[in-house]
Amino acid sequence: MQPLTDLSRLSLNQATTQNWSVLEAVDGCVRAGIPSIGLWRHKVAEAGLTESARIVRSTGLQVSSVCRGGFFPAATPAEREARIDDNRRAIEEAAELGASVLVLVCGPAPDQDIGAAREMVRDGIAAVAPYAQERGVKLAIEPLHPMFAADRSVIVTLRQALDIAEQFDQQQVGVAIDVYHVWWDPEVYRQIKRAEGRILGFHTNDWVVPPPDFLLGRGMIGDGVIEIRRLRCAVDAAGYHGPIEVEIFNQALWDTPGDEVLALMCQRYIAHV
Amino acid sequence: MQPLTDLSRLSLNQATTQNWSVLEAVDGCVRAGIPSIGLWRHKVAEAGLTESARIVRSTGLQVSSVCRGGFFPAATPAEREARIDDNRRAIEEAAELGASVLVLVCGPAPDQDIGAAREMVRDGIAAVAPYAQERGVKLAIEPLHPMFAADRSVIVTLRQALDIAEQFDQQQVGVAIDVYHVWWDPEVYRQIKRAEGRILGFHTNDWVVPPPDFLLGRGMIGDGVIEIRRLRCAVDAAGYHGPIEVEIFNQALWDTPGDEVLALMCQRYIAHV
Repeated sequence: MQPLTDLSRLSLNQATTQNWSVLEAVDGCVRAGIPSIGLWRHKVAEAGLTESARIVRSTGLQVSSVCRGGFFPAATPAEREARIDDNRRAIEEAAELGASVLVLVCGPAPDQDIGAAREMVRDGIAAVAPYAQERGVKLAIEPLHPMFAADRSVIVTLRQALDIAEQFDQQQVGVAIDVYHVWWDPEVYRQIKRAEGRILGFHTNDWVVPPPDFLLGRGMIGDGVIEIRRLRCAVDAAGYHGPIEVEIFNQALWDTPGDEVLALMCQRYIAHV
Repeated sequence: MQPLTDLSRLSLNQATTQNWSVLEAVDGCVRAGIPSIGLWRHKVAEAGLTESARIVRSTGLQVSSVCRGGFFPAATPAEREARIDDNRRAIEEAAELGASVLVLVCGPAPDQDIGAAREMVRDGIAAVAPYAQERGVKLAIEPLHPMFAADRSVIVTLRQALDIAEQFDQQQVGVAIDVYHVWWDPEVYRQIKRAEGRILGFHTNDWVVPPPDFLLGRGMIGDGVIEIRRLRCAVDAAGYHGPIEVEIFNQALWDTPGDEVLALMCQRYIAHV
Protein backbone atom coordinates (compact mmCIF):
# COMPACT_ATOMS: atom_id res chain seq x y z
CA MET A 1 0.00 0.00 0.00
CA GLN A 2 1.83 3.06 -1.31
CA PRO A 3 1.50 6.26 0.74
CA LEU A 4 0.56 9.51 -0.93
CA THR A 5 3.63 11.69 -1.44
CA ASP A 6 2.10 15.16 -1.74
CA LEU A 7 -1.03 17.16 -0.99
CA SER A 8 -2.31 17.34 -4.57
CA ARG A 9 -5.47 15.34 -3.80
CA LEU A 10 -6.14 16.81 -0.34
CA SER A 11 -9.31 18.79 0.26
CA LEU A 12 -10.51 20.54 3.40
CA ASN A 13 -14.14 19.78 4.07
CA GLN A 14 -15.44 22.89 5.75
CA ALA A 15 -17.09 20.86 8.54
CA THR A 16 -13.58 20.36 9.94
CA THR A 17 -13.20 24.09 10.61
CA GLN A 18 -16.71 24.89 11.72
CA ASN A 19 -15.77 28.28 13.17
CA TRP A 20 -14.24 29.58 9.95
CA SER A 21 -16.18 31.51 7.31
CA VAL A 22 -15.80 30.63 3.63
CA LEU A 23 -13.19 33.36 3.27
CA GLU A 24 -11.25 32.20 6.32
CA ALA A 25 -11.34 28.57 5.19
CA VAL A 26 -10.25 29.42 1.64
CA ASP A 27 -7.40 31.59 2.94
CA GLY A 28 -6.43 28.82 5.36
CA CYS A 29 -6.22 26.31 2.51
CA VAL A 30 -4.06 28.67 0.47
CA ARG A 31 -1.69 29.21 3.41
CA ALA A 32 -1.46 25.45 4.06
CA GLY A 33 -0.99 24.49 0.41
CA ILE A 34 -4.27 22.57 0.27
CA PRO A 35 -5.59 22.72 -3.31
CA SER A 36 -9.30 21.89 -2.75
CA ILE A 37 -12.18 22.65 -0.47
CA GLY A 38 -15.55 21.03 0.22
CA LEU A 39 -18.09 23.77 0.96
CA TRP A 40 -21.18 23.63 3.18
CA ARG A 41 -24.34 25.42 2.14
CA HIS A 42 -24.96 27.15 5.48
CA LYS A 43 -21.47 28.67 5.33
CA VAL A 44 -21.98 29.70 1.71
CA ALA A 45 -25.30 31.29 2.68
CA GLU A 46 -23.60 33.28 5.46
CA ALA A 47 -21.03 34.68 3.03
CA GLY A 48 -23.47 34.96 0.14
CA LEU A 49 -23.44 32.66 -2.87
CA THR A 50 -22.00 35.13 -5.39
CA GLU A 51 -19.36 36.33 -2.95
CA SER A 52 -18.41 32.74 -2.03
CA ALA A 53 -18.02 31.84 -5.69
CA ARG A 54 -15.90 34.95 -6.23
CA ILE A 55 -13.66 34.14 -3.24
CA VAL A 56 -13.05 30.60 -4.42
CA ARG A 57 -12.42 31.59 -8.06
CA SER A 58 -10.00 34.34 -7.06
CA THR A 59 -7.69 31.78 -5.42
CA GLY A 60 -7.92 29.02 -8.02
CA LEU A 61 -8.98 26.56 -5.33
CA GLN A 62 -10.94 23.55 -6.61
CA VAL A 63 -14.35 22.92 -5.01
CA SER A 64 -14.37 19.19 -4.43
CA SER A 65 -18.02 19.04 -3.37
CA VAL A 66 -20.92 20.94 -1.91
CA CYS A 67 -22.57 19.55 1.24
CA ARG A 68 -25.39 18.84 1.18
CA GLY A 69 -28.57 17.94 -0.61
CA GLY A 70 -30.85 15.08 0.33
CA PHE A 71 -33.30 14.77 3.24
CA PHE A 72 -35.93 13.51 0.82
CA PRO A 73 -38.38 11.57 3.06
CA ALA A 74 -41.20 13.60 4.58
CA ALA A 75 -44.69 12.92 5.88
CA THR A 76 -46.69 14.63 3.13
CA PRO A 77 -46.40 15.06 -0.65
CA ALA A 78 -46.18 18.84 -0.16
CA GLU A 79 -43.27 18.49 2.24
CA ARG A 80 -41.53 16.06 -0.10
CA GLU A 81 -41.96 18.55 -2.94
CA ALA A 82 -40.42 21.27 -0.76
CA ARG A 83 -37.42 19.02 -0.15
CA ILE A 84 -37.06 18.44 -3.87
CA ASP A 85 -37.17 22.20 -4.47
CA ASP A 86 -34.43 22.64 -1.91
CA ASN A 87 -32.34 20.04 -3.72
CA ARG A 88 -32.79 21.98 -6.96
CA ARG A 89 -31.47 25.07 -5.18
CA ALA A 90 -28.53 23.04 -3.86
CA ILE A 91 -27.74 21.95 -7.41
CA GLU A 92 -27.84 25.58 -8.59
CA GLU A 93 -25.52 26.59 -5.78
CA ALA A 94 -23.08 23.79 -6.58
CA ALA A 95 -23.04 24.84 -10.23
CA GLU A 96 -22.48 28.47 -9.31
CA LEU A 97 -19.61 27.49 -6.99
CA GLY A 98 -17.96 25.45 -9.72
CA ALA A 99 -18.45 22.16 -7.86
CA SER A 100 -19.09 19.12 -10.00
CA VAL A 101 -20.45 17.08 -7.07
CA LEU A 102 -23.36 17.60 -4.67
CA VAL A 103 -23.26 15.25 -1.68
CA LEU A 104 -26.61 13.78 -0.66
CA VAL A 105 -27.33 12.95 2.97
CA CYS A 106 -30.59 11.23 2.25
CA GLY A 107 -32.56 11.89 5.43
CA PRO A 108 -34.44 9.87 8.08
CA ALA A 109 -37.95 8.43 7.92
CA PRO A 110 -40.78 10.70 9.09
CA ASP A 111 -42.26 7.71 10.99
CA GLN A 112 -41.43 4.07 11.76
CA ASP A 113 -41.64 2.91 8.14
CA ILE A 114 -37.99 2.88 7.10
CA GLY A 115 -38.80 0.93 3.92
CA ALA A 116 -41.19 3.61 2.66
CA ALA A 117 -38.62 6.31 3.44
CA ARG A 118 -36.09 4.46 1.31
CA GLU A 119 -38.53 4.59 -1.59
CA MET A 120 -38.91 8.35 -1.05
CA VAL A 121 -35.14 8.72 -1.33
CA ARG A 122 -35.09 6.92 -4.66
CA ASP A 123 -38.03 8.96 -5.92
CA GLY A 124 -36.45 12.21 -4.74
CA ILE A 125 -33.21 11.46 -6.55
CA ALA A 126 -35.16 10.56 -9.69
CA ALA A 127 -36.94 13.92 -9.48
CA VAL A 128 -33.72 15.98 -9.42
CA ALA A 129 -31.13 13.91 -11.32
CA PRO A 130 -31.95 15.27 -14.81
CA TYR A 131 -31.79 18.85 -13.52
CA ALA A 132 -28.42 18.13 -11.90
CA GLN A 133 -27.09 16.80 -15.18
CA GLU A 134 -28.33 19.91 -17.02
CA ARG A 135 -26.35 22.04 -14.58
CA GLY A 136 -23.22 19.87 -14.82
CA VAL A 137 -23.49 18.59 -11.24
CA LYS A 138 -23.29 14.93 -10.25
CA LEU A 139 -25.21 13.61 -7.25
CA ALA A 140 -23.18 11.60 -4.73
CA ILE A 141 -25.26 9.41 -2.43
CA GLU A 142 -23.39 9.19 0.86
CA PRO A 143 -24.29 6.14 2.93
CA LEU A 144 -24.16 7.16 6.58
CA HIS A 145 -23.18 4.98 9.52
CA PRO A 146 -26.18 2.92 10.69
CA MET A 147 -26.14 4.80 13.99
CA PHE A 148 -27.61 7.73 12.02
CA ALA A 149 -30.42 5.64 10.49
CA ALA A 150 -33.08 7.21 12.71
CA ASP A 151 -32.13 10.87 12.45
CA ARG A 152 -30.00 11.52 9.36
CA SER A 153 -30.05 8.86 6.66
CA VAL A 154 -32.02 5.74 5.88
CA ILE A 155 -29.23 4.92 3.42
CA VAL A 156 -26.68 3.14 5.59
CA THR A 157 -24.48 0.86 3.49
CA LEU A 158 -22.45 1.24 0.33
CA ARG A 159 -24.32 -1.72 -1.15
CA GLN A 160 -27.61 0.07 -0.62
CA ALA A 161 -26.29 3.37 -2.02
CA LEU A 162 -25.07 1.54 -5.12
CA ASP A 163 -28.38 -0.31 -5.50
CA ILE A 164 -29.95 3.13 -5.89
CA ALA A 165 -27.17 4.80 -7.89
CA GLU A 166 -27.18 2.00 -10.46
CA GLN A 167 -30.77 2.83 -11.32
CA PHE A 168 -29.45 6.06 -12.84
CA ASP A 169 -27.03 7.06 -15.55
CA GLN A 170 -23.42 6.97 -14.42
CA GLN A 171 -23.12 10.61 -15.48
CA GLN A 172 -25.86 11.61 -13.05
CA VAL A 173 -25.62 9.61 -9.82
CA GLY A 174 -22.78 8.01 -7.90
CA VAL A 175 -21.60 7.61 -4.32
CA ALA A 176 -19.45 9.42 -1.78
CA ILE A 177 -17.49 7.09 0.48
CA ASP A 178 -16.63 8.31 3.98
CA VAL A 179 -14.38 5.96 5.95
CA TYR A 180 -16.23 6.77 9.18
CA HIS A 181 -19.50 5.55 7.73
CA VAL A 182 -18.30 2.37 6.00
CA TRP A 183 -15.22 1.00 7.80
CA TRP A 184 -17.19 -1.53 9.91
CA ASP A 185 -18.90 -3.15 6.91
CA PRO A 186 -17.86 -6.77 6.23
CA GLU A 187 -18.65 -6.11 2.55
CA VAL A 188 -16.89 -2.78 2.17
CA TYR A 189 -14.06 -3.91 -0.11
CA ARG A 190 -16.39 -5.90 -2.33
CA GLN A 191 -18.73 -2.93 -2.63
CA ILE A 192 -15.89 -0.45 -3.31
CA LYS A 193 -14.84 -2.66 -6.21
CA ARG A 194 -18.42 -2.74 -7.44
CA ALA A 195 -18.52 1.07 -7.21
CA GLU A 196 -15.96 1.48 -10.03
CA GLY A 197 -17.06 4.38 -12.23
CA ARG A 198 -19.51 5.65 -9.59
CA ILE A 199 -17.17 7.00 -6.91
CA LEU A 200 -17.59 10.77 -6.72
CA GLY A 201 -15.87 11.48 -3.42
CA PHE A 202 -13.75 9.98 -0.67
CA HIS A 203 -13.87 11.41 2.87
CA THR A 204 -11.42 10.69 5.67
CA ASN A 205 -11.30 11.02 9.46
CA ASP A 206 -11.10 8.29 12.11
CA TRP A 207 -13.12 6.25 14.62
CA VAL A 208 -11.72 6.76 18.09
CA VAL A 209 -12.27 4.24 20.89
CA PRO A 210 -14.38 4.75 22.88
CA PRO A 211 -16.36 7.22 20.77
CA PRO A 212 -16.79 10.45 22.75
CA ASP A 213 -20.07 11.53 21.14
CA PHE A 214 -22.62 10.41 18.56
CA LEU A 215 -22.38 13.44 16.31
CA LEU A 216 -19.21 15.29 17.25
CA GLY A 217 -17.04 12.29 18.06
CA ARG A 218 -15.11 11.80 14.83
CA GLY A 219 -11.39 11.62 15.28
CA MET A 220 -8.41 13.14 13.50
CA ILE A 221 -6.88 10.80 10.92
CA GLY A 222 -4.55 8.40 12.74
CA ASP A 223 -6.21 8.70 16.15
CA GLY A 224 -8.49 5.69 15.71
CA VAL A 225 -8.95 2.18 14.38
CA ILE A 226 -9.92 2.69 10.74
CA GLU A 227 -7.64 1.15 8.10
CA ILE A 228 -7.69 4.42 6.18
CA ARG A 229 -4.83 3.68 3.79
CA ARG A 230 -6.25 0.30 2.90
CA LEU A 231 -9.60 1.89 2.10
CA ARG A 232 -7.94 4.68 0.10
CA CYS A 233 -5.97 2.15 -1.93
CA ALA A 234 -9.18 0.17 -2.58
CA VAL A 235 -10.89 3.34 -3.78
CA ASP A 236 -7.89 4.14 -5.99
CA ALA A 237 -7.96 0.59 -7.39
CA ALA A 238 -11.63 1.16 -8.25
CA GLY A 239 -10.52 4.03 -10.47
CA TYR A 240 -11.08 7.04 -8.25
CA HIS A 241 -8.31 9.59 -8.48
CA GLY A 242 -10.17 12.69 -7.35
CA PRO A 243 -9.98 14.83 -4.23
CA ILE A 244 -9.71 13.27 -0.78
CA GLU A 245 -11.66 15.35 1.71
CA VAL A 246 -10.90 15.51 5.41
CA GLU A 247 -14.22 15.89 7.18
CA ILE A 248 -14.12 15.82 10.98
CA PHE A 249 -17.02 16.78 13.21
CA ASN A 250 -15.24 17.21 16.53
CA GLN A 251 -15.80 19.89 19.13
CA ALA A 252 -12.21 19.82 20.40
CA LEU A 253 -10.91 20.40 16.85
CA TRP A 254 -13.42 23.20 16.34
CA ASP A 255 -12.04 24.84 19.47
CA THR A 256 -8.48 24.68 18.08
CA PRO A 257 -7.12 27.49 15.87
CA GLY A 258 -7.82 26.59 12.24
CA ASP A 259 -4.24 26.90 11.02
CA GLU A 260 -3.15 24.36 13.64
CA VAL A 261 -5.91 21.98 12.55
CA LEU A 262 -4.85 22.27 8.91
CA ALA A 263 -1.18 21.71 9.72
CA LEU A 264 -1.99 18.58 11.73
CA MET A 265 -4.37 17.39 9.04
CA CYS A 266 -1.69 17.71 6.31
CA GLN A 267 0.80 15.78 8.42
CA ARG A 268 -1.64 12.99 9.27
CA TYR A 269 -2.82 12.80 5.67
CA ILE A 270 0.67 11.96 4.44
CA ALA A 271 1.29 9.58 7.36
CA HIS A 272 -1.99 7.63 7.30
CA VAL A 273 -3.97 8.17 4.08
CA MET B 1 -49.39 -8.66 12.03
CA GLN B 2 -51.05 -10.40 14.98
CA PRO B 3 -50.19 -9.10 18.46
CA LEU B 4 -49.14 -11.50 21.19
CA THR B 5 -52.01 -12.17 23.57
CA ASP B 6 -50.20 -13.33 26.69
CA LEU B 7 -46.81 -13.31 28.43
CA SER B 8 -45.97 -16.96 27.73
CA ARG B 9 -42.95 -16.10 25.56
CA LEU B 10 -41.74 -13.11 27.57
CA SER B 11 -38.34 -13.24 29.24
CA LEU B 12 -36.60 -10.66 31.41
CA ASN B 13 -33.02 -10.21 30.35
CA GLN B 14 -31.22 -9.35 33.56
CA ALA B 15 -29.47 -6.38 31.94
CA THR B 16 -32.82 -4.56 32.15
CA THR B 17 -32.73 -4.65 35.95
CA GLN B 18 -29.04 -4.08 36.51
CA ASN B 19 -29.45 -3.29 40.22
CA TRP B 20 -31.23 -6.55 41.04
CA SER B 21 -29.46 -9.71 42.15
CA VAL B 22 -30.35 -13.07 40.62
CA LEU B 23 -32.70 -13.74 43.53
CA GLU B 24 -34.38 -10.35 43.24
CA ALA B 25 -34.78 -10.70 39.45
CA VAL B 26 -36.18 -14.23 39.73
CA ASP B 27 -38.63 -13.14 42.44
CA GLY B 28 -39.58 -10.11 40.35
CA CYS B 29 -40.37 -12.34 37.36
CA VAL B 30 -42.53 -14.62 39.53
CA ARG B 31 -44.45 -11.62 40.90
CA ALA B 32 -44.97 -10.19 37.40
CA GLY B 33 -45.96 -13.50 35.81
CA ILE B 34 -42.93 -13.54 33.52
CA PRO B 35 -42.05 -17.18 32.81
CA SER B 36 -38.41 -16.83 31.64
CA ILE B 37 -35.21 -15.04 32.50
CA GLY B 38 -31.95 -14.36 30.65
CA LEU B 39 -29.08 -14.45 33.16
CA TRP B 40 -25.79 -12.56 33.08
CA ARG B 41 -22.62 -14.26 34.24
CA HIS B 42 -21.44 -11.43 36.50
CA LYS B 43 -24.74 -11.55 38.36
CA VAL B 44 -24.58 -15.34 38.61
CA ALA B 45 -21.01 -15.05 39.92
CA GLU B 46 -22.16 -12.61 42.62
CA ALA B 47 -24.85 -15.00 43.81
CA GLY B 48 -22.76 -18.12 43.23
CA LEU B 49 -23.37 -20.57 40.40
CA THR B 50 -24.86 -23.39 42.47
CA GLU B 51 -27.06 -21.02 44.44
CA SER B 52 -28.23 -19.27 41.25
CA ALA B 53 -29.15 -22.61 39.70
CA ARG B 54 -31.01 -23.58 42.88
CA ILE B 55 -32.94 -20.28 42.95
CA VAL B 56 -34.04 -20.64 39.34
CA ARG B 57 -35.00 -24.32 39.67
CA SER B 58 -36.99 -23.68 42.83
CA THR B 59 -39.33 -21.34 40.94
CA GLY B 60 -39.68 -23.33 37.73
CA LEU B 61 -38.56 -20.29 35.73
CA GLN B 62 -37.08 -21.09 32.30
CA VAL B 63 -33.58 -19.72 31.61
CA SER B 64 -33.87 -18.37 28.07
CA SER B 65 -30.15 -17.68 27.71
CA VAL B 66 -26.93 -16.93 29.50
CA CYS B 67 -25.05 -13.75 28.55
CA ARG B 68 -22.34 -13.91 27.51
CA GLY B 69 -19.50 -15.78 25.92
CA GLY B 70 -17.42 -14.49 23.04
CA PHE B 71 -14.68 -11.83 23.01
CA PHE B 72 -12.49 -14.18 20.98
CA PRO B 73 -10.01 -11.83 19.24
CA ALA B 74 -6.84 -11.05 21.17
CA ALA B 75 -3.30 -9.99 20.35
CA THR B 76 -1.47 -13.21 21.21
CA PRO B 77 -2.18 -16.96 20.93
CA ALA B 78 -1.96 -17.26 24.73
CA GLU B 79 -4.58 -14.56 25.23
CA ARG B 80 -6.82 -16.15 22.61
CA GLU B 81 -6.50 -19.49 24.40
CA ALA B 82 -7.48 -17.79 27.66
CA ARG B 83 -10.59 -16.40 25.96
CA ILE B 84 -11.46 -19.89 24.72
CA ASP B 85 -11.04 -21.27 28.24
CA ASP B 86 -13.39 -18.59 29.50
CA ASN B 87 -15.95 -19.61 26.88
CA ARG B 88 -15.69 -23.22 28.08
CA ARG B 89 -16.49 -21.98 31.59
CA ALA B 90 -19.42 -20.00 30.24
CA ILE B 91 -20.74 -23.16 28.57
CA GLU B 92 -20.43 -25.07 31.84
CA GLU B 93 -22.28 -22.31 33.67
CA ALA B 94 -25.07 -22.28 31.08
CA ALA B 95 -25.44 -26.06 31.39
CA GLU B 96 -25.52 -25.85 35.19
CA LEU B 97 -28.18 -23.13 35.03
CA GLY B 98 -30.32 -25.22 32.70
CA ALA B 99 -29.94 -22.74 29.82
CA SER B 100 -29.86 -24.25 26.36
CA VAL B 101 -28.38 -21.11 24.79
CA LEU B 102 -25.18 -19.15 25.41
CA VAL B 103 -25.16 -15.74 23.72
CA LEU B 104 -21.86 -14.78 22.08
CA VAL B 105 -20.80 -11.13 21.90
CA CYS B 106 -17.84 -11.79 19.70
CA GLY B 107 -15.43 -9.03 20.72
CA PRO B 108 -13.48 -6.21 19.05
CA ALA B 109 -10.18 -6.42 17.19
CA PRO B 110 -7.02 -6.02 19.29
CA ASP B 111 -5.61 -3.71 16.59
CA GLN B 112 -6.67 -2.10 13.29
CA ASP B 113 -7.03 -5.41 11.43
CA ILE B 114 -10.75 -6.07 11.62
CA GLY B 115 -10.52 -8.82 9.01
CA ALA B 116 -8.05 -10.84 11.09
CA ALA B 117 -10.23 -10.39 14.17
CA ARG B 118 -13.18 -11.82 12.27
CA GLU B 119 -11.10 -14.93 11.51
CA MET B 120 -10.30 -15.22 15.24
CA VAL B 121 -14.02 -15.20 15.99
CA ARG B 122 -14.63 -18.06 13.60
CA ASP B 123 -11.67 -20.00 14.99
CA GLY B 124 -12.78 -19.38 18.56
CA ILE B 125 -16.28 -20.66 17.88
CA ALA B 126 -14.81 -23.72 16.15
CA ALA B 127 -12.69 -24.39 19.24
CA VAL B 128 -15.66 -24.44 21.63
CA ALA B 129 -18.64 -25.61 19.56
CA PRO B 130 -18.12 -29.36 20.09
CA TYR B 131 -17.77 -28.84 23.83
CA ALA B 132 -20.98 -26.81 23.89
CA GLN B 133 -22.83 -29.59 22.10
CA GLU B 134 -21.52 -32.15 24.62
CA ARG B 135 -22.97 -30.05 27.41
CA GLY B 136 -26.30 -29.51 25.65
CA VAL B 137 -25.73 -25.79 25.06
CA LYS B 138 -26.17 -24.03 21.71
CA LEU B 139 -24.05 -21.01 20.78
CA ALA B 140 -25.96 -17.94 19.57
CA ILE B 141 -23.83 -15.46 17.64
CA GLU B 142 -25.32 -12.02 18.30
CA PRO B 143 -24.48 -9.46 15.63
CA LEU B 144 -24.07 -6.10 17.36
CA HIS B 145 -24.90 -2.69 15.93
CA PRO B 146 -22.00 -1.40 13.79
CA MET B 147 -21.45 1.41 16.28
CA PHE B 148 -19.96 -1.26 18.55
CA ALA B 149 -17.57 -2.60 15.89
CA ALA B 150 -14.51 -1.03 17.53
CA ASP B 151 -15.13 -1.95 21.15
CA ARG B 152 -17.55 -4.87 21.43
CA SER B 153 -18.07 -6.97 18.31
CA VAL B 154 -16.52 -7.26 14.88
CA ILE B 155 -19.67 -9.21 13.94
CA VAL B 156 -22.09 -6.47 12.95
CA THR B 157 -24.74 -7.82 10.60
CA LEU B 158 -27.09 -10.78 10.59
CA ARG B 159 -25.71 -11.78 7.19
CA GLN B 160 -22.22 -11.96 8.64
CA ALA B 161 -23.36 -13.89 11.73
CA LEU B 162 -25.13 -16.41 9.49
CA ASP B 163 -22.09 -16.70 7.22
CA ILE B 164 -20.24 -17.96 10.30
CA ALA B 165 -23.06 -19.98 11.87
CA GLU B 166 -23.64 -21.89 8.64
CA GLN B 167 -20.11 -23.26 8.84
CA PHE B 168 -21.27 -25.29 11.84
CA ASP B 169 -23.90 -27.90 12.55
CA GLN B 170 -27.35 -26.43 13.15
CA GLN B 171 -27.38 -28.22 16.52
CA GLN B 172 -24.29 -26.31 17.61
CA VAL B 173 -24.33 -22.72 16.36
CA GLY B 174 -27.08 -20.25 15.52
CA VAL B 175 -27.84 -16.55 15.97
CA ALA B 176 -29.49 -14.24 18.49
CA ILE B 177 -31.40 -11.37 16.90
CA ASP B 178 -31.71 -8.13 18.87
CA VAL B 179 -33.93 -5.51 17.25
CA TYR B 180 -31.63 -2.70 18.44
CA HIS B 181 -28.70 -4.18 16.58
CA VAL B 182 -30.40 -5.08 13.29
CA TRP B 183 -33.36 -2.75 12.69
CA TRP B 184 -31.41 -0.37 10.40
CA ASP B 185 -30.23 -3.11 8.03
CA PRO B 186 -31.69 -2.92 4.49
CA GLU B 187 -31.29 -6.72 4.34
CA VAL B 188 -32.75 -7.61 7.70
CA TYR B 189 -35.94 -9.30 6.51
CA ARG B 190 -34.10 -11.28 3.84
CA GLN B 191 -31.54 -12.43 6.41
CA ILE B 192 -34.17 -13.33 9.02
CA LYS B 193 -35.77 -15.58 6.42
CA ARG B 194 -32.40 -17.13 5.68
CA ALA B 195 -31.89 -17.70 9.43
CA GLU B 196 -34.71 -20.27 9.58
CA GLY B 197 -33.61 -23.12 11.84
CA ARG B 198 -30.73 -21.07 13.28
CA ILE B 199 -32.61 -18.51 15.41
CA LEU B 200 -31.81 -19.16 19.06
CA GLY B 201 -33.01 -15.93 20.61
CA PHE B 202 -34.94 -12.73 19.95
CA HIS B 203 -34.27 -9.60 22.01
CA THR B 204 -36.43 -6.49 22.15
CA ASN B 205 -36.04 -2.85 23.24
CA ASP B 206 -36.18 0.31 21.13
CA TRP B 207 -34.09 2.97 19.39
CA VAL B 208 -35.00 6.41 20.73
CA VAL B 209 -34.37 9.59 18.78
CA PRO B 210 -32.00 11.21 19.41
CA PRO B 211 -30.06 8.45 21.16
CA PRO B 212 -29.08 9.68 24.63
CA ASP B 213 -25.92 7.55 24.97
CA PHE B 214 -23.82 5.03 23.06
CA LEU B 215 -24.02 2.23 25.60
CA LEU B 216 -26.86 3.07 27.97
CA GLY B 217 -29.21 4.69 25.48
CA ARG B 218 -31.54 1.84 24.60
CA GLY B 219 -35.19 2.67 24.97
CA MET B 220 -38.19 0.91 26.44
CA ILE B 221 -40.26 -0.96 23.86
CA GLY B 222 -42.57 1.54 22.16
CA ASP B 223 -40.49 4.64 22.91
CA GLY B 224 -38.59 4.62 19.63
CA VAL B 225 -38.63 4.01 15.88
CA ILE B 226 -38.06 0.27 15.55
CA GLU B 227 -40.77 -1.76 13.80
CA ILE B 228 -40.65 -4.31 16.62
CA ARG B 229 -43.83 -6.20 15.78
CA ARG B 230 -42.87 -6.50 12.13
CA LEU B 231 -39.50 -7.93 13.13
CA ARG B 232 -41.10 -10.31 15.65
CA CYS B 233 -43.54 -11.56 13.02
CA ALA B 234 -40.65 -12.10 10.59
CA VAL B 235 -38.77 -14.10 13.22
CA ASP B 236 -41.93 -16.13 13.93
CA ALA B 237 -42.39 -16.76 10.21
CA ALA B 238 -38.82 -18.06 10.13
CA GLY B 239 -39.88 -20.74 12.62
CA TYR B 240 -38.77 -19.23 15.92
CA HIS B 241 -41.27 -19.74 18.69
CA GLY B 242 -38.98 -19.46 21.70
CA PRO B 243 -38.60 -16.85 24.42
CA ILE B 244 -38.61 -13.13 23.61
CA GLU B 245 -36.19 -11.34 25.89
CA VAL B 246 -36.48 -7.70 26.86
CA GLU B 247 -32.94 -6.37 27.18
CA ILE B 248 -32.60 -2.65 27.86
CA PHE B 249 -29.39 -0.96 28.91
CA ASN B 250 -30.68 2.35 30.19
CA GLN B 251 -29.55 4.27 33.23
CA ALA B 252 -32.96 5.86 33.87
CA LEU B 253 -34.60 2.42 33.89
CA TRP B 254 -31.91 1.09 36.19
CA ASP B 255 -32.73 3.92 38.59
CA THR B 256 -36.43 2.95 38.58
CA PRO B 257 -37.77 0.34 41.05
CA GLY B 258 -37.60 -3.08 39.38
CA ASP B 259 -41.26 -3.98 39.86
CA GLU B 260 -42.27 -0.79 38.05
CA VAL B 261 -39.92 -1.63 35.19
CA LEU B 262 -41.37 -5.13 34.86
CA ALA B 263 -44.95 -3.86 34.93
CA LEU B 264 -44.22 -1.33 32.18
CA MET B 265 -42.31 -3.93 30.20
CA CYS B 266 -45.24 -6.40 30.30
CA GLN B 267 -47.66 -3.70 29.14
CA ARG B 268 -45.41 -2.52 26.29
CA TYR B 269 -44.69 -6.11 25.26
CA ILE B 270 -48.38 -6.77 24.62
CA ALA B 271 -48.86 -3.37 22.97
CA HIS B 272 -45.83 -3.33 20.65
CA VAL B 273 -44.20 -6.77 20.32
